Amino acid sequence: MYRSHNNGQLRANNINESVTLSGWVQKSRDKGFMIWVDLRDRYGITQLIFDEERTPKDIMNKAKTLGREFVIQVRGTVIERDSKNPNLPTGDIELLVSELIILNTAKLPPFTIEDTTDGGEELRMQYRYLDIRRNPVKDSLIFRHKVTQEVRNYLSQKDFIEVETPYLIKSTPEGARDFVVPSRMNEGQFYALPQSPQTFKQLLMVGGMDKYFQIVKCFRDEDLRADRQPEFTQIDCEMAFVEQEDILNIFEGLTRHLLKEINGVEVDKFPRMRFDDAMRLYGNDKPDIRFGMEFGELNEVAQHKDFKVFNSAELVVGIAVPGGASYTRKDIDKLIDWVKRPQVGALGMVYVKCNADGTFKSSVDKFYDQDDLAKWAEATGAKAGDLICVLSGDTNKVRPQLSALRMEIAERLDLRKSDEFAPLWVVDFPLLELDEETGHYHAMHHPFTSPKPGQIELLDTTPGAVKANAYDLVLNGNEIGGGSIRIHDKETQAIMFKHLGFTAEEAKAQFGFLMDAFEYGAPPHGGLAFGLDRLVAILGGQETIRDFIAFPKNNSGRDVMIDAPAAIDDAQLNELSLKLNLK
Amino acid sequence: MYRSHNNGQLRANNINESVTLSGWVQKSRDKGFMIWVDLRDRYGITQLIFDEERTPKDIMNKAKTLGREFVIQVRGTVIERDSKNPNLPTGDIELLVSELIILNTAKLPPFTIEDTTDGGEELRMQYRYLDIRRNPVKDSLIFRHKVTQEVRNYLSQKDFIEVETPYLIKSTPEGARDFVVPSRMNEGQFYALPQSPQTFKQLLMVGGMDKYFQIVKCFRDEDLRADRQPEFTQIDCEMAFVEQEDILNIFEGLTRHLLKEINGVEVDKFPRMRFDDAMRLYGNDKPDIRFGMEFGELNEVAQHKDFKVFNSAELVVGIAVPGGASYTRKDIDKLIDWVKRPQVGALGMVYVKCNADGTFKSSVDKFYDQDDLAKWAEATGAKAGDLICVLSGDTNKVRPQLSALRMEIAERLDLRKSDEFAPLWVVDFPLLELDEETGHYHAMHHPFTSPKPGQIELLDTTPGAVKANAYDLVLNGNEIGGGSIRIHDKETQAIMFKHLGFTAEEAKAQFGFLMDAFEYGAPPHGGLAFGLDRLVAILGGQETIRDFIAFPKNNSGRDVMIDAPAAIDDAQLNELSLKLNLK
Repeated sequence: MYRSHNNGQLRANNINESVTLSGWVQKSRDKGFMIWVDLRDRYGITQLIFDEERTPKDIMNKAKTLGREFVIQVRGTVIERDSKNPNLPTGDIELLVSELIILNTAKLPPFTIEDTTDGGEELRMQYRYLDIRRNPVKDSLIFRHKVTQEVRNYLSQKDFIEVETPYLIKSTPEGARDFVVPSRMNEGQFYALPQSPQTFKQLLMVGGMDKYFQIVKCFRDEDLRADRQPEFTQIDCEMAFVEQEDILNIFEGLTRHLLKEINGVEVDKFPRMRFDDAMRLYGNDKPDIRFGMEFGELNEVAQHKDFKVFNSAELVVGIAVPGGASYTRKDIDKLIDWVKRPQVGALGMVYVKCNADGTFKSSVDKFYDQDDLAKWAEATGAKAGDLICVLSGDTNKVRPQLSALRMEIAERLDLRKSDEFAPLWVVDFPLLELDEETGHYHAMHHPFTSPKPGQIELLDTTPGAVKANAYDLVLNGNEIGGGSIRIHDKETQAIMFKHLGFTAEEAKAQFGFLMDAFEYGAPPHGGLAFGLDRLVAILGGQETIRDFIAFPKNNSGRDVMIDAPAAIDDAQLNELSLKLNLK
Repeated sequence: MYRSHNNGQLRANNINESVTLSGWVQKSRDKGFMIWVDLRDRYGITQLIFDEERTPKDIMNKAKTLGREFVIQVRGTVIERDSKNPNLPTGDIELLVSELIILNTAKLPPFTIEDTTDGGEELRMQYRYLDIRRNPVKDSLIFRHKVTQEVRNYLSQKDFIEVETPYLIKSTPEGARDFVVPSRMNEGQFYALPQSPQTFKQLLMVGGMDKYFQIVKCFRDEDLRADRQPEFTQIDCEMAFVEQEDILNIFEGLTRHLLKEINGVEVDKFPRMRFDDAMRLYGNDKPDIRFGMEFGELNEVAQHKDFKVFNSAELVVGIAVPGGASYTRKDIDKLIDWVKRPQVGALGMVYVKCNADGTFKSSVDKFYDQDDLAKWAEATGAKAGDLICVLSGDTNKVRPQLSALRMEIAERLDLRKSDEFAPLWVVDFPLLELDEETGHYHAMHHPFTSPKPGQIELLDTTPGAVKANAYDLVLNGNEIGGGSIRIHDKETQAIMFKHLGFTAEEAKAQFGFLMDAFEYGAPPHGGLAFGLDRLVAILGGQETIRDFIAFPKNNSGRDVMIDAPAAIDDAQLNELSLKLNLK
């Protein structure tokens, strides 16, 4: 038996007990006549003491050889500490060691195993197994486990069944790029790894499974943006005999349950916002509503004068920055530089200071008088002491620009509190999205999304106006989940495929089995999927997902710890009937 | 709202309530003036009644058009049934329908949606979404969910953390063949899909995660035997600071918990059997101990006469078939034919009838007298009325032959009761296994398995005799789990790699990151993995796993429903820097 207790367990009431502990040497202080060692494991730290007077000489000598991260086992007696450490749960006691076994030595780690480490990102990834010893990473993984357990328990209690769908499936050109897997037994053929279990969960509904969920890995061979992973985890859900309202209620319940159980936060009924309103008020389909600064559209009150920039713009729109009237000229110039960065892309920014005395001072005073500016303040909700920032241009460009500015200012003003949670349903998404390059429409959500009742006729005339029974769950400015009511009849699905540019043959080749299934009595159904990595990160009060993934890949899709991907040998390629075709 | 209740819910106390139901038409009986419809969903069946006197005429007419598997929604009043059906939970009531909506029509299914279907295996797989509507398949999937929930809850309560390990890893030639995944972003390189998370769970132990589990898909590109799947699910576990005893206790606890919660069966402490004893007594390392018929080795009592077949054999071994003395000559000839089938491969079988009067009648009476045969009866435990079946030959051939016969006879005598559970630990497995073709030893469990203390020196002299800290959990003659204590120091691991025929370079290329990790303070650790598909099938009282997998593949690794794998287009191949190289 390697241990009778773990290192987070011993308290004052264990004093005088003989115990056995195992763990890693966190640090060692050698005063010559006395040595203290902090012994660490997943559960905590216990202080060991070796002293000349009470510890056998050979043990004392062995203790002097202990280096950082050595793995040791000790036996001894729990004693009261002279100087207690109130910051440590075991801080009332220490272990007077009578036996010491070195289970394993350790080379000096390439970075310190402390909450704040001196290791850079790349080094931490290469030695991820050491990084995981650090509390921030270890605690994030334990936190993730707690979240998934709560999800499973909640959904199971609601009669959902977790069903494992296959990983070796069929490649479909729709959506992102698939990872493929050559089949040795079926020469020249390939499986694909699922981008999501979408079709399988719909088939489970056709199969009468009624309420399905699965916490499941999904795969997308995309060029990776920061904080995207080629493999990621979804909480995938589907229900039969439901309308949108049923689905929103169930998953609002799940999210509320998580906020309560995990974060101890009680949240009222989640607000709902139409996609069009989210775009109008926040320039964004996943608005962070923990703070205000809603957009004020200014076309009516800003396009009646000679300011050509505004008059030629499709949209003139502003936000009120609380307390911004006190910004210096230099502060404001920095904001202007910020919106002109290529990542944001604005051409410039107009501003209005709302002075304490009720007057206004703007960068466009030569075009607009105090009455004009008062109307701007009204439209943006600016109060005395605020700064109005105004951008203009094409609607689909200026909205994301102002949205980026709004988030940046909120960040600077510390309005995005990580312990505050503001969930929001965004509903009534457009069914189709115009690809500006090709001029074709493609499915905004996916090709099985149902149009709103009575809108299918609009597909022929104004496809961009058709709204879908589709919804996103937004938390603190992040999309954490999304879904839709599906099309459950073959006729509607055929119309959709036609509008998405699939020929009947292509649709049959790609989705024939689903369309066939719909002929045998498909029930009305719909669902939702949460992005688990992000959900966990946000519940954990963070915005980056990497520390919530045990072994993440870098931005080139590489696992730098195991050095994958890697070359395989020719025999393996031959067996798969493949040859390299390097460029 | 599509339903106020599900179809398994209504009881006598709902009589006179107005309710809404949805589901599939299981069957319809039309008596002209009255129509009964069985409405089915996941939860059960409710009888609907339409009758000339009480149902509006248009509803009556619509009801006459309902075909099998139509999806409908009905509103009506719960009434008491005239003739109650005690076999149906809802059998006291029926629903008098006042409104009928056909949500979807259905083509006639290619097989009947009944507990016993007329659909063959291939057809059921092709239309798996219809097969899942059948109770045996649906209930198996729900059963699987319950088992995994219990596993997760039990292990979580024991402080295990479920950690997701990556699916896109690195190919290793050790063990079975990997499925590989070409990387587009890393030209000419491949990921591999994990055969198990073995190295990652060991790295998690090095990372201090202490107690890990994961219910996880694994992949092996093997030529498929019956009842094997290219993707399968493991309950994968690992613990640090443990000895074999700790691991056996935890997972015995888990298995006992499952048997109790899932099957309502209380099982005492699991017996343990050494590998050598299992082979000697059952000819098998996963003996079914629900029944006796243990092997009796007969060399000493059968090699002293002139029967050359026995005298030249390495092993003469028999079992006593209860009540077999009454078999006719024809019965026995059939048994002899059975063991001579190529799948078993015995050259013949000697038998002894143990007559009720205490005398013996054997097929080798000309070589052996009654005293000889009495000794055989003693060695095999045969009693009056039994039949002793004796095989002989090379030990490693005759043991599996007699084991097969033992299982076959148990099957025929109905001794393998599916509601009886006999778990067993098989321990002290050999560390290495001789590959008879190559003459090389390879790891019986895997290359990280620790030899028993003090046995590592034997590796140089008698490698086949070295025993490992490795164990299997056997349930009803099936291996449901297996694991080992791992090697946690680099020196022992290096010795093992040498004996397994890896050069230092090969070992470094394959497992370098693990060996590196072991230099930074690896704790003693070990673990176990359960095969979930089989575990669930056995707990469910079945031996085939296919109905416990939602979307299984056939023996060529094909998903016949979605028709995967399939060809991919040249553009996709080009992006991956690959060319087909068909034979």
